[in-house]
Amino acid sequence: MALLICVTGRNNDKLIAKLTALLPEQTILEWPLDDPTQLEKVEFVLAWNAPQFLWEQLPNLKVVHSYGAGVDSIPIHLLPEHVEVARIVDPNLADDMAEYVLGHILSHKLRVREYQQNQTAQVWKPKRANAGRTVGIMGMGQLGLAVANKLIINRFTVKGWSNSAKQLDNIAHFSGETELSAFLQDLDYLVCLLPLTEQTQGMLDATIFAAAPSHCVLINVARGRHLNEADLLSALANESFGGAILDVFETEPLPIEHGFWLHPKITITPHVAALTSLSTAAEQIANNFIAMRNSQALSHTVKKHQGY
Amino acid sequence: MALLICVTGRNNDKLIAKLTALLPEQTILEWPLDDPTQLEKVEFVLAWNAPQFLWEQLPNLKVVHSYGAGVDSIPIHLLPEHVEVARIVDPNLADDMAEYVLGHILSHKLRVREYQQNQTAQVWKPKRANAGRTVGIMGMGQLGLAVANKLIINRFTVKGWSNSAKQLDNIAHFSGETELSAFLQDLDYLVCLLPLTEQTQGMLDATIFAAAPSHCVLINVARGRHLNEADLLSALANESFGGAILDVFETEPLPIEHGFWLHPKITITPHVAALTSLSTAAEQIANNFIAMRNSQALSHTVKKHQGY
Repeated sequence: MALLICVTGRNNDKLIAKLTALLPEQTILEWPLDDPTQLEKVEFVLAWNAPQFLWEQLPNLKVVHSYGAGVDSIPIHLLPEHVEVARIVDPNLADDMAEYVLGHILSHKLRVREYQQNQTAQVWKPKRANAGRTVGIMGMGQLGLAVANKLIINRFTVKGWSNSAKQLDNIAHFSGETELSAFLQDLDYLVCLLPLTEQTQGMLDATIFAAAPSHCVLINVARGRHLNEADLLSALANESFGGAILDVFETEPLPIEHGFWLHPKITITPHVAALTSLSTAAEQIANNFIAMRNSQALSHTVKKHQGY
Repeated sequence: MALLICVTGRNNDKLIAKLTALLPEQTILEWPLDDPTQLEKVEFVLAWNAPQFLWEQLPNLKVVHSYGAGVDSIPIHLLPEHVEVARIVDPNLADDMAEYVLGHILSHKLRVREYQQNQTAQVWKPKRANAGRTVGIMGMGQLGLAVANKLIINRFTVKGWSNSAKQLDNIAHFSGETELSAFLQDLDYLVCLLPLTEQTQGMLDATIFAAAPSHCVLINVARGRHLNEADLLSALANESFGGAILDVFETEPLPIEHGFWLHPKITITPHVAALTSLSTAAEQIANNFIAMRNSQALSHTVKKHQGY
């Protein structure tokens, strides 16, 4: 019985040290392996951007655990039916996400970037703050709700949109494609916190930018692939949409030649809205590993047919 | 009986139109006057940066009304004992002030300026947010309390400092010079909302910058003259203090040659934290004018010996 860490593109030394401390008698392996025969022992994989060919080499796989709040980097359709999929649910992650969204909306209202540019140019040019206070959130899961509540206590009007109907306090909720234009019509800010699925991929497109008010600003804190990047650039160019604050991108790091970097209506942050805390993550992973070993129920599992 | 508007350095046409609509049968004059003999009729002055020599030319003066929340532009010591001084108390002003302070603290936490600079340089460099959540507010009047409450509902720890002792919910309160260093010692952010008086002028000085932690960031939304500008520059240069977000300055507009403009640790906004709404202001001024005419009590008067 072994735990395989396949979190690519970063240094995992601290994570391995934490997991070793929490699971002192377990075999913890890191991808790539020197000895591929060890794959036979693997029952639990901690995954982030794992190579697709990994999954067919694990005959004894029981659990795939995402190293993040989303499971979109895990190809669920390639996994045997009995394999469970779990994710990190970090309560601080929701706080951080809510604070990122509030902070960037307030920065936009207060013209922080505009005044910074004026400061560089040594220009004194007072203006009233941007007045709009209506925020629409697409994706009313745990993170969407945390963002909504944070905005409501700060005197914003919040509308929500989800795939399926919901009843929520203090939030006008819309669902399905038929209610999308009613949801969008009076938004000052549009926040994307959708899960990434086949249905939601590329959903932030020309239709949405056309239906929202021309001053509306998008805040994408979900996944880069929710956004049709070309449609956003067109909508900004013809002034049918207001601007975008983007924390996630189709390719990360954002390639140096990408048109977003120097766009005056686009604010870029480098995927920092909600960073998983190493301690919280390691604890949840270790607890789920122990649950699997003891044939107990896992926490924070995902409904595989839904993908979230 | 006449109302004189002496609000210098701006166009007052809209204000005069509003006041004329609210006080249709009154004489409303604007400084400078073509006919100086009209000064004899003036009982009520609406003032902002009025020239000092004005005050001795008003034999029938009864009320001086500030066109703002502060009365520091009014030389109270030059006014006869019986003259009342009033100011604007705009409830939106407190909301706006609270939102400015919260927004700029969150912008700093979220590294908005830093990421904007990285974006201009096309650099992808993720960092964790700045962690500090302890905010000290100097000046716990109406605006200070509004800022404190806004920060508390957003999970900040708030400390307050005033000239005299106070009991406040959820706020550790300090008073007088003796408690200043205990107030300052663990602050991540220091907000100045003091009234400008002889005692508070230049109060943000080397002593305060030395007593606060070296990463502490000042947010001055009171008056430029609260700040000893040279002391701030020294403290930033020797890294004994962290940075400053300044909305007010000794001279406004900030002169082009001023060292603040291009300082990497100073954020400048052009006196926009809380802009008086024309409608609210005109209404309060008109109501006070009517109260004076009917020998009734004025609203929002100032204790002249305190200066606030």
